[in-house]
Amino acid sequence: MNNQELLKRSMQSVWHPCTQMKQHESFPLTPIQRGEGVWLYDADGKKYLDTVSSWWVNLFGHNNPRIKDAIKQQLDTLEHVMLAGFTHEPVVALSEQLATLTGLGHAFYASDGASATEIALKMSFHYWRNVGLPNKTKFISLQNSYHGETLGALAVTDVAIFKDTYAPLLMQSAQMPSPDFRLAEAGESAADYALRCALQLEQYVAQHHTELAAFIIEPLVQCAAGMAMYHPVYLAKARETCSKYQVHLIADEIAVGFGRTGSMFATEQAASEGCKVSDIADFVCLSKGITGGYLPLSAVLTTDNIYQAFYDQSTARGFLHSHSYTGNPLACSAALATLAIFKSDHVVQKNLAQSALIVQEMQVLTDLPIQHMRHQGMIFAFDVVTGNHQFAKQCYQLAMQHGLLLRPIGNTVYYMPPYTIDADEIALMVQNTHQVIKQIL
Amino acid sequence: MNNQELLKRSMQSVWHPCTQMKQHESFPLTPIQRGEGVWLYDADGKKYLDTVSSWWVNLFGHNNPRIKDAIKQQLDTLEHVMLAGFTHEPVVALSEQLATLTGLGHAFYASDGASATEIALKMSFHYWRNVGLPNKTKFISLQNSYHGETLGALAVTDVAIFKDTYAPLLMQSAQMPSPDFRLAEAGESAADYALRCALQLEQYVAQHHTELAAFIIEPLVQCAAGMAMYHPVYLAKARETCSKYQVHLIADEIAVGFGRTGSMFATEQAASEGCKVSDIADFVCLSKGITGGYLPLSAVLTTDNIYQAFYDQSTARGFLHSHSYTGNPLACSAALATLAIFKSDHVVQKNLAQSALIVQEMQVLTDLPIQHMRHQGMIFAFDVVTGNHQFAKQCYQLAMQHGLLLRPIGNTVYYMPPYTIDADEIALMVQNTHQVIKQIL
Repeated sequence: MNNQELLKRSMQSVWHPCTQMKQHESFPLTPIQRGEGVWLYDADGKKYLDTVSSWWVNLFGHNNPRIKDAIKQQLDTLEHVMLAGFTHEPVVALSEQLATLTGLGHAFYASDGASATEIALKMSFHYWRNVGLPNKTKFISLQNSYHGETLGALAVTDVAIFKDTYAPLLMQSAQMPSPDFRLAEAGESAADYALRCALQLEQYVAQHHTELAAFIIEPLVQCAAGMAMYHPVYLAKARETCSKYQVHLIADEIAVGFGRTGSMFATEQAASEGCKVSDIADFVCLSKGITGGYLPLSAVLTTDNIYQAFYDQSTARGFLHSHSYTGNPLACSAALATLAIFKSDHVVQKNLAQSALIVQEMQVLTDLPIQHMRHQGMIFAFDVVTGNHQFAKQCYQLAMQHGLLLRPIGNTVYYMPPYTIDADEIALMVQNTHQVIKQIL
Repeated sequence: MNNQELLKRSMQSVWHPCTQMKQHESFPLTPIQRGEGVWLYDADGKKYLDTVSSWWVNLFGHNNPRIKDAIKQQLDTLEHVMLAGFTHEPVVALSEQLATLTGLGHAFYASDGASATEIALKMSFHYWRNVGLPNKTKFISLQNSYHGETLGALAVTDVAIFKDTYAPLLMQSAQMPSPDFRLAEAGESAADYALRCALQLEQYVAQHHTELAAFIIEPLVQCAAGMAMYHPVYLAKARETCSKYQVHLIADEIAVGFGRTGSMFATEQAASEGCKVSDIADFVCLSKGITGGYLPLSAVLTTDNIYQAFYDQSTARGFLHSHSYTGNPLACSAALATLAIFKSDHVVQKNLAQSALIVQEMQVLTDLPIQHMRHQGMIFAFDVVTGNHQFAKQCYQLAMQHGLLLRPIGNTVYYMPPYTIDADEIALMVQNTHQVIKQIL
């Protein structure tokens, strides 16, 4: 089966996500046959460097021997059992390890990231009801935030192209000014701008707290907004505000968790050395990288205080939400293998050098008309200055010809590569990006 | 690690789904170490017959060699690639096969069943907007329906214990009388009662159709309602009503698809021989059994007419919904192996004999105070007549002592076993159930 045949069949039968299918008339889909490390190979044998980790999920390369062997081993013992009334070693071990890493000791599972957002929103709302504050029913998020696209998650998302169409179906939520430091005024530092936004958050919360259940936020980087980065002081201040006014803080680490931002979890950078997610967040949502990019799995972790508010004789005071595949042992085994790699390979520490190398290599791009060159751990981005409204599309297409999976968001070009990318691959990635952009402008 | 140790660790770190955790103080969780066929083995070596297929997902037994080998093989080529801009053989082949089986030619993927419901609701709403009927924004479902628990799915679910708490967060929807034949009047046949309900549906739709986007329904069996079964004429009439008034019909086959009700899809039984899902439904939601109970995967299939309404130059007219793991190759490979078993083993046909055998064996239960003994394909249920409000809990607990995973819903005892259950296992299942119920009453 070659590229041509597969893509024709795919156009006929598969409705691809996040896609206006008609656009594939002019630029065809790419059929992928196999992966190896940072590389994806199409059905004609051409290879592409996966600079976006296949939508920010892959951590340690495709066809990773340790993760795949762990899944194979799990396949030989227990592929799945329902998690209501039952339990199993992989889900227990994973929950314990996540509790140690985050300081949040109770883990609830689903498979889609959007479902994790929904679970966190429902838990927060239900908590306030259980503790006698049933008027706390509303949620706030940041401008340009992305938390998923099921109706509850979409209600707190603020990306117009995903949200506007569905407005009549969505509950109301309010969006706070984004601390994205590109929005700072001339001469204003990222920290000062973050503090100014945090003040606006506090003003809003002070006025509305009696009806607010939770503030949901993507820590440090609003990825779907175009890798909008902000100063960590915003998180610390948001925590203060949430504590002062009895509002939950939900850290959506679906995209930024598992080492992406330079620490195991982005939220850890909110305060001083040794800060844990639990020092800042009442809930954390995890998915994407949790299985190393192998299998769908999502989790919501929360505090003992919140858990205890549901722990009661009354069934209705319990959190009765469920998904059939909650805590799937195969997905948990992939997650355990992923955490084992973090530990044995000192990944977070090694990524510091990796990140510095990429930043250094990217200096070659500075002769292009770009601005806001930025990075946060293993996320790297810059904005191309051009009036060309087709830039993102043209860049994607031309990059594919150059063997790069590069997927700009508007005029923002970004890299979020597997952590295993080597020096030669980094050089190739950056040099080819330079060529591609130069050719378009 | 023995039972005692594992369950203690699980209670500390895992927040189990659909569970008031405090209830596990009096009846502990069961830690499962491995599965084999219809059996689950705990950490102390005791075995349990999985009569509910681990929440209705397992079709061909635990540790199924064909499904696990397919996943292992896929692990050696491509574990995952993003499905936006890319495609791969497993998702294409699966979509083609599902199109052939259902007559619905365009497949959109997610991982949780609830996400499939959300996708169908959003697609229906967006379709009407794209064709110039933006007032069609509302959804209807059946009384006692279950379509998932994310906020959009929960809005069309009608199980009080799951829904009532979250009412302030949910969009409004209306519930139509359930054709559940236990609700028929004395002397009224299941078909007559279904027709009466269908008439009430038509009356509602006639009055409200200008604002109605879709009617979502679980074909033939409302499982979470307590295996409420109804006459298929209801589906045929509902289709007539939906066509007459321009309202979509969404068939939620998440629990009833893949052979559960005696046909590959329950919707096929709505009309004469050779009826396809596409003759009745505009959308079908699939999950649970789709991977044979191995991995989380869900899909929404729809018609060419609906697909074409999104196919346009305008990006915003496209369906831009996405999940990171949409079309995960590993999950698709499990689904392909599952469909291959259906074909090579003539599963739907063989299940007819299997179903008859279980029905026959269940005659031994008729000396108990039970009513509404019923079955639909490989779903079997009866209602125990007792004023004991603890019946479900006691039955579950005592059955576990007898080596049965039996999980009554209220006073309804049901079986939804893997299709591979053999004659001895059937006899054991029924006889132990008899003992358990007798002991409680």
